[in-house]
Amino acid sequence: MTGDRKPAVCVLGTGLIGGSVLRAAVAAGYEAWGFNRSEPGVRAARADGFDVSADIGAVLGRAADRDALIVIGVPQPALDTVLSDVRSFAPACPLTDVISVKKPVLDAVHRHELGAHFVGGHPMAGTSESGWAASTPDLFKGAAWAISVDPGVHADPWTRVARLALGCGAVVVPVLSAEHDSAVARISHLPHVLAEALAIQGAGGGALALGLAAGSFRDGTRVAATAPALVRAICEPNADALLEVLDDTLRVLAAARDSLRDTDSLAQLTEAGHDARNDYDTFRRWAIEGIRPGDHDWLAKLAEAGRRGGVIEALE
Amino acid sequence: MTGDRKPAVCVLGTGLIGGSVLRAAVAAGYEAWGFNRSEPGVRAARADGFDVSADIGAVLGRAADRDALIVIGVPQPALDTVLSDVRSFAPACPLTDVISVKKPVLDAVHRHELGAHFVGGHPMAGTSESGWAASTPDLFKGAAWAISVDPGVHADPWTRVARLALGCGAVVVPVLSAEHDSAVARISHLPHVLAEALAIQGAGGGALALGLAAGSFRDGTRVAATAPALVRAICEPNADALLEVLDDTLRVLAAARDSLRDTDSLAQLTEAGHDARNDYDTFRRWAIEGIRPGDHDWLAKLAEAGRRGGVIEALE
Repeated sequence: MTGDRKPAVCVLGTGLIGGSVLRAAVAAGYEAWGFNRSEPGVRAARADGFDVSADIGAVLGRAADRDALIVIGVPQPALDTVLSDVRSFAPACPLTDVISVKKPVLDAVHRHELGAHFVGGHPMAGTSESGWAASTPDLFKGAAWAISVDPGVHADPWTRVARLALGCGAVVVPVLSAEHDSAVARISHLPHVLAEALAIQGAGGGALALGLAAGSFRDGTRVAATAPALVRAICEPNADALLEVLDDTLRVLAAARDSLRDTDSLAQLTEAGHDARNDYDTFRRWAIEGIRPGDHDWLAKLAEAGRRGGVIEALE
Repeated sequence: MTGDRKPAVCVLGTGLIGGSVLRAAVAAGYEAWGFNRSEPGVRAARADGFDVSADIGAVLGRAADRDALIVIGVPQPALDTVLSDVRSFAPACPLTDVISVKKPVLDAVHRHELGAHFVGGHPMAGTSESGWAASTPDLFKGAAWAISVDPGVHADPWTRVARLALGCGAVVVPVLSAEHDSAVARISHLPHVLAEALAIQGAGGGALALGLAAGSFRDGTRVAATAPALVRAICEPNADALLEVLDDTLRVLAAARDSLRDTDSLAQLTEAGHDARNDYDTFRRWAIEGIRPGDHDWLAKLAEAGRRGGVIEALE
């Protein structure tokens, strides 16, 4: 870092999320460049005026020279390869990721002995489309961006990651990796699973059912339009947490089925579901203040605040 | 009916759907008036300049005088009361309904010996809000409006109902009541059940999960905001068809759970779900032409066309 200039950002993987980070970082005044494995992806980003290359050695060499914050934006199945490259070319750079599941990423980072400068991250934004073409600098505006406060995280890289998230227009949710994974199983991975199941039932009704489908079906199946490989890359690494919530969902649905069959009633399901949606509609973020990265017990304090719905809206 | 003037329309129940029919009918040039049980609902409609009364005898007496098409827009649990009134005050009027389930309505109509002039209907439109305040004349623009072609339906009332639907901006989907109920269990009632279950799982994750929730959770739970009594009034009368599709959904989800648990894979679910959503995205209505109400075998021909995704966009 040189004086007041914003530190550099190096994005590995310029698909929907990574590409949007690159766009948002440049828009926020960061010196930022990226790597993409596929040549068509590289060409598309370059055509839009961004500094993207398929030469991972050159991209990471520049990151090492410039002490860039490296942002890993590849799908989880490609993570090990990318971590090997980071270990080879830029092992001392601060490192984060924007992958949907945090505990498996943390484990992989430690396997590659890159834990010292690593802070996991996950911006809660997306569309059912993918690739550079779907990326936009506004994707994170107003979104929550989960940032790990696991034991051992260092204040310097944490602050760099948080500043980038804030610079992209997000608010920061401090969270333990394991608690993050349980939460997103509920609000991100289960919605994918249910959307797929609903889409299957709708199409099972043929042209008549699809022709009668209106808003509830359209919205309920929206994310089933996501490429299957991407849904799998998001959900499968979180199998443990997803299995737990999926088992509970099966219990809730089976209880509703039994109640409808035996007493003609959906009272319990509809009351509980309505109350739950009301919890969501009335949920309000509150601003975490007065906890500075590096202060005594800051990681545990941030984890506790995040657990209660607190977000960081600005850093001093 | 007098010359070329549009025939009169009498709407019983001026909530979201019935109120929107009243607004749309007036906007389309129909002489139209309505009944609402609750005085606040009556006052709200009158304040907006509509001819609505809580005096069912007067409202139906006028319908009998004017040979109005009566549109039943009350929730299914109130149906028997309203049918008794129709039988008392206007038994010879053409009669339709805008209730979400068709077979139980048909059965009730026959119990009240009102089958001769009855044609079931169901506009596929709504919001998670309810009541006159949520009604709008544009609710049915571009929507599908299912209209029964059950054996025994007469051409005259059928044509009046279809003209009203077209006048409200909808396209007509001709359908047998039983096939309608199976189809809407898939694309309307199951989405409600899954949205309730998803909302419950999200709120079960507390402030952290609700704070991380983004588009997939918001869209997947949208209809859980609907009043529980309304969801029950929509889904419970369709218990047989809903139970069938709910059982199959439980099988699909349990198979996905087993696959994730035993092989770390969601391949089958995500491929099938994506294909199914693609069927929906690429579904195109086609215009039924050349089948005139009253022609030989017209009911069966329309049912067959509707089953294959055909819609009526205009009547000669």
